Amino acid sequence: MCNTCGCGLNNISEDHISTGKTVQLTQDILGQNDRLAGTNRRIFDSMGVVTVNLVSSPGAGKTTLLERTIRDLKNNIPIGVIEGDQQTDRDAERIRATGVPAYQIKTMDACHLDAHMVKHALENFQMDTLELLFIENVGNLICPSAFDLGEDHRVIILSITEGEDKALKYPGIFLSSQLVILNKIDLLNVLNFDLDECISYINRVNPGVEILCVSAETGEGMSKWYNWLKQKIDNKRRKK
Amino acid sequence: MCNTCGCGLNNISEDHISTGKTVQLTQDILGQNDRLAGTNRRIFDSMGVVTVNLVSSPGAGKTTLLERTIRDLKNNIPIGVIEGDQQTDRDAERIRATGVPAYQIKTMDACHLDAHMVKHALENFQMDTLELLFIENVGNLICPSAFDLGEDHRVIILSITEGEDKALKYPGIFLSSQLVILNKIDLLNVLNFDLDECISYINRVNPGVEILCVSAETGEGMSKWYNWLKQKIDNKRRKK
Repeated sequence: MCNTCGCGLNNISEDHISTGKTVQLTQDILGQNDRLAGTNRRIFDSMGVVTVNLVSSPGAGKTTLLERTIRDLKNNIPIGVIEGDQQTDRDAERIRATGVPAYQIKTMDACHLDAHMVKHALENFQMDTLELLFIENVGNLICPSAFDLGEDHRVIILSITEGEDKALKYPGIFLSSQLVILNKIDLLNVLNFDLDECISYINRVNPGVEILCVSAETGEGMSKWYNWLKQKIDNKRRKK
Repeated sequence: MCNTCGCGLNNISEDHISTGKTVQLTQDILGQNDRLAGTNRRIFDSMGVVTVNLVSSPGAGKTTLLERTIRDLKNNIPIGVIEGDQQTDRDAERIRATGVPAYQIKTMDACHLDAHMVKHALENFQMDTLELLFIENVGNLICPSAFDLGEDHRVIILSITEGEDKALKYPGIFLSSQLVILNKIDLLNVLNFDLDECISYINRVNPGVEILCVSAETGEGMSKWYNWLKQKIDNKRRKK
């Protein structure tokens, strides 16, 4: 569309050169990320640790979900947590208050976690003592979708306060997730929200993907999430 | 931190070279964006159009806020809307249903609008007939903050369902905004949300920034937002 755009560049080909460079660099970065994700995956497999990458919009309730999950499961399952945020240690502090080890990655300008950051974060855990590692990604429905961290499972949390249509608007991250958790279901009666419509949109993007309705605040529906996690841990134990 | 990381790269310097390339390319892209944003700004100024860039998390209620704003103001102020989403025309369709012109930019892989996209979107409007142009950015609290679109004002919408601490976690976008709208205030009584704490965090990041509490759903507080807009339009009229 630039041929007739008169968009103020001194030399219109600058834009095309830059785009070409961007594509090549994106491929380089993603290729390098995939190699490091493979390294992470080999570590998780050799240690028998199930790793779950939690993605969502900002404020969908990832940390609250983790707090309750850890309090309910930590006596039977050794858990660790890697937290990702642009700034602050707040989430890692909240997780450490539950009594499990947590490491905060501050991404600063970066809008997602990548495999390299996770690789270094692992140095802060005694991996051979863990069975379950959560990685709470930066709140962002776009950028994290392209970056494999080496996780076993990607789980997307969608707060029902965000509206029905997020799967249609951000299809990449819904398509790359193996489980969708609809959170804040305790607010269903006070919101103008159509649950069936939301589920039909998710299925349109990722047909047959498992969907759980929960409230991390009240605990409603959380047992189904725990069963999902326990099944993944059992599967990995059997493979080991 | 890479000197001792053993992170699986064939040649560890690859990572540094790539980072150097990334920094250079980021500077190129932002420099080019700023030039085009300047072009857009000259267009807005010469046409006397006040331009407002709306940023937020996904599902914070930007489109609902626009729908009500347009219905309440369109008889006195000629309005246009540029919509940004990774996929779908849904938001532009919702806006067109209010009776004003709207153009949808589908950003596909891109996580933000940039000045080049906006420049081309402008070709779809009769700019000399408008007084107010809204640009609804992609739902993302990180990436849009670096990209000047040539707008007069950047306004961040934060849904109170997202929790108190978003300003601390995503300081860049709060610091670069001239107005914070706290939306979904009608849910204050059913949420475990501390409004004073949220406001103190916003002030810590951007001291003295104007903050309005509204419900785009019920209309509560919207008149303050309309007064804010009218004042900006009056200021531009006087300058013209």
